[in-house]
Order: sequence, then C-alpha cells, then structure tokens
Amino acid sequence: MVARAQIHTEAVEYKDGDTVLEGFSAYDESIQGKRPAVLIVHQWKGLTDYEKKRAEMLAKLGYNVFALDIYGKGVRPQDPKEAGAQAGKYKGNRELLRQRANAGLAVLKNHKLTDTKKVAAIGYCFGGTTVIELARSGADIKGVVSFHGGLDSPKPEDGKNIKARVLALHGADDPNVPAKDVAAFEDEMRNAKVDWELVKYGGAVHSFTDWNAGNDNSKGAAYNEKADKRSWEDMKQFFGEIFK
Amino acid sequence: MVARAQIHTEAVEYKDGDTVLEGFSAYDESIQGKRPAVLIVHQWKGLTDYEKKRAEMLAKLGYNVFALDIYGKGVRPQDPKEAGAQAGKYKGNRELLRQRANAGLAVLKNHKLTDTKKVAAIGYCFGGTTVIELARSGADIKGVVSFHGGLDSPKPEDGKNIKARVLALHGADDPNVPAKDVAAFEDEMRNAKVDWELVKYGGAVHSFTDWNAGNDNSKGAAYNEKADKRSWEDMKQFFGEIFK
Repeated sequence: MVARAQIHTEAVEYKDGDTVLEGFSAYDESIQGKRPAVLIVHQWKGLTDYEKKRAEMLAKLGYNVFALDIYGKGVRPQDPKEAGAQAGKYKGNRELLRQRANAGLAVLKNHKLTDTKKVAAIGYCFGGTTVIELARSGADIKGVVSFHGGLDSPKPEDGKNIKARVLALHGADDPNVPAKDVAAFEDEMRNAKVDWELVKYGGAVHSFTDWNAGNDNSKGAAYNEKADKRSWEDMKQFFGEIFK
Repeated sequence: MVARAQIHTEAVEYKDGDTVLEGFSAYDESIQGKRPAVLIVHQWKGLTDYEKKRAEMLAKLGYNVFALDIYGKGVRPQDPKEAGAQAGKYKGNRELLRQRANAGLAVLKNHKLTDTKKVAAIGYCFGGTTVIELARSGADIKGVVSFHGGLDSPKPEDGKNIKARVLALHGADDPNVPAKDVAAFEDEMRNAKVDWELVKYGGAVHSFTDWNAGNDNSKGAAYNEKADKRSWEDMKQFFGEIFK
C-alpha cells in the first residue's frame, strides 16, 4: 500500500466565526472509501512544512488527515518572539483554543473520506497542549497523542470531560514541561479516571520529533532520532488499538 | 510462523557455586539455527507456570528463551509471607541477586540456539527489579524490560555500569513502587546517561500483567488487560529496535 500510495494534498480554507483559517488536507487517493482520520495540531510557529510533512506521512499510513490552523490564515510567526506571542495568546485563553481546535476537528469530521467513528488528534509542542485541551473540551474522538506538549491545565477539573484515550509522549529532560506539570497532569488523569498513558524518553529534551530543531540538547529543544522513531511507533500502536 | 510453531520446553538444572537451580527452556523447533534470546526473571513466588507461559509466548515469537531460577531448585514459596522472605533476602543482598541473575544469563548465552549478540532480559515484579540489577552489574546484553518491578537502588552510582537499554513499564497507580523510587530511578538513568524509557499505564496497579492477580485494584495488585497488552506490545517494539 505504502509503495503505491498516491498522496493528494491541498490547502483548505475554513472559518471559526469570522476568522478565516487555512489548514492542509492529505489522503491517499489509491485507497477507496472512508477511513480512520487524524487531526494534526501545529507547533508554536503555526502550520508549517513540518506539520504538512507529518500529514503526508500519516496519509501514507492510510489515514485521512487534516492539519488545522489555530492562528488564522497568513498568521505564520517567523521568529520565537512572535511565535511565543501567538502561542501565549491561546494558552492564556483555553476556551478560544478549544474553540479553534474544535473548528479544525469539524472540518476533518465533515470530510467525505472520514470514518467519523474513528477519529484521533495528534499535536506537537503547542499542538500537544492543544490536543489535550481538545479532549478536555469533551470532544467525541477516540484518542489524542501529545508529542512534547505542555501538560499544565488552568482547570484540572475539566479532566472529567475527557472521553478520548490520552497518550502523552514526553522528553524526560524537557525543560519546557517541568516535573510539577507532569505530576499535575498525572493527577488530573487519575482523578478523572481517564484511559491515559505517559511515556518518558530518556535523553530527550523539548522538540524531540522536530528535525528542524538541531541536535544541541543544551538549548533545551533538539531533535532526537531515537525518541522521534519510538514515539512515532508508540503513536502507531495507539492508533492500532483505538481504531480496531 | 506462529501457526506452525512447535515449542520445545524442558526443565534445565544448573548451578551458581554449590547452589542447585532449576530453570525452564523454551524455543520453537520449527525454526532453524541461532536466534535472538530472552531471559525471563520470575516474580516473588519463584519460577511458576506464569513465567513458563510467558516463556512459551516468547518462543512463539521466535526467541530462544530461558526462564531462570533465583531461589534454588524446589524453593517455590507457596504464600505471600514465604515469597516476601525469599524476595527480601535477595533484594537485601543485591550482589547475590546479580550473581544469580548472571548465572541464569550464562545458561542462556551458552545455549546452542542463542545468537549471543542479541540477548535481552525481561522480568516481572521481583524479576523486574532483578533485570535492572542485572543491567547495573554491567551485563553485556542489548536490553532489559522491567514489568511492574521495584525501581529502587541501594547504589544508584552503579547506574554507570549499565550497557543495556532499559525499558521500565510501570503501573501509574502501583502502591508497591512509590513515586520517590520512580523519581530516583529516573535520576539514576539520567545521571548515568543510560538509553532509557519509562512508560506509565494509567489505571494500572502492581502485577498488571499477571492473570492470576484478580481484578480488584483496591488490593494494590491486580490484572489489567489493557496495560498487559500494551506493555507486551511495548516490549515487542523494544525488541524490534534492540535486535535489528
């Protein structure tokens, strides 16, 4: 299947209220009919080639994929300061973040190729935070996978809304996701009786899946090939379980 | 391969010094030649049908398997008190525990069907503690997998001896493995720059893989089908990586 995959991709404009957003759709045209579907939420720089590449990788695995846009069409931060400002705006307004995540989810669910009973969401960094917020919003999806996402919650009591299975993939040396946040996340999941799992990859810092992040762990964010590959396999195993 | 597997099993007597031990060997006779090999270390009740069943499951996956005996031939505790006494004897004497673990490893490495460059060890409960001690002894193996093992170490500085990759599979609600031990284990691995990974399964207590452990989480030890299956898959993925 993979060898013969014909991946169709296209930009998709959609709206949340009056805000115009632009996501990215990817699926394998060589497969017929509806299929399990995966939503991708971007890192703090917004929807970039990184997420589009992940979308194509997932499409090659047979999923119908939509990489959403939280920030708005054309809002694509070019430096860390701008990225921090955008990410901070939504992290500081979790209701708006949930709303934008659900707007993207609706696009995916309404896509003609989506088997609406088999939908999951994954996210990286800011997107890893977002998919857990999506779960906390009570979204009717099978599971969420957070890759090096922030795990804090201003309203841990919202854990009780979670219907999805939660897989948190965490770099054990990630300075952006402090131990106290990890512990609070665990308590939130535990108290709400969520079906959850946390994986800590030794030697990995923030951004361990991002091949654009360099290799210098001392910067606190770096690519880690082992953790990247393990986490991708962990995600595939999780999908195998939730979509069966 | 699995459907046509012909699993050969036999009891194997061997010695550590003057102490007679009795382990259990399992391999698939329908496969020719040397193959990756897996050592199994038993729970606190010693080598039982549980470990023998796991040995057969691994043999069906194509591994040459040896379930060792730490306690000695015929020493098979029949109740928790006796089991606690035996396990406590070795947990309190880590040098002896390492010696016994290495004696079992030698049997596996000397087996005619073992590819000695592809050897791993797994252990459950007491055995989960033991395989990490085996790694701390500097054993020349590719990896160890600890299922609901105790993670404490009286000599965390021995982490520097570890050559094997370490995968610790932990029930997030396991009262036998307190959070401070988990944190100390993480620090030991981190400080020694071990290639390590820790998985926490939400909702799982001690003994989550043991189908004889009942289903009452309030007892602190119980079977958990989801965590059992996920951890088995995690082990297989780990083997795929370390044996490639």
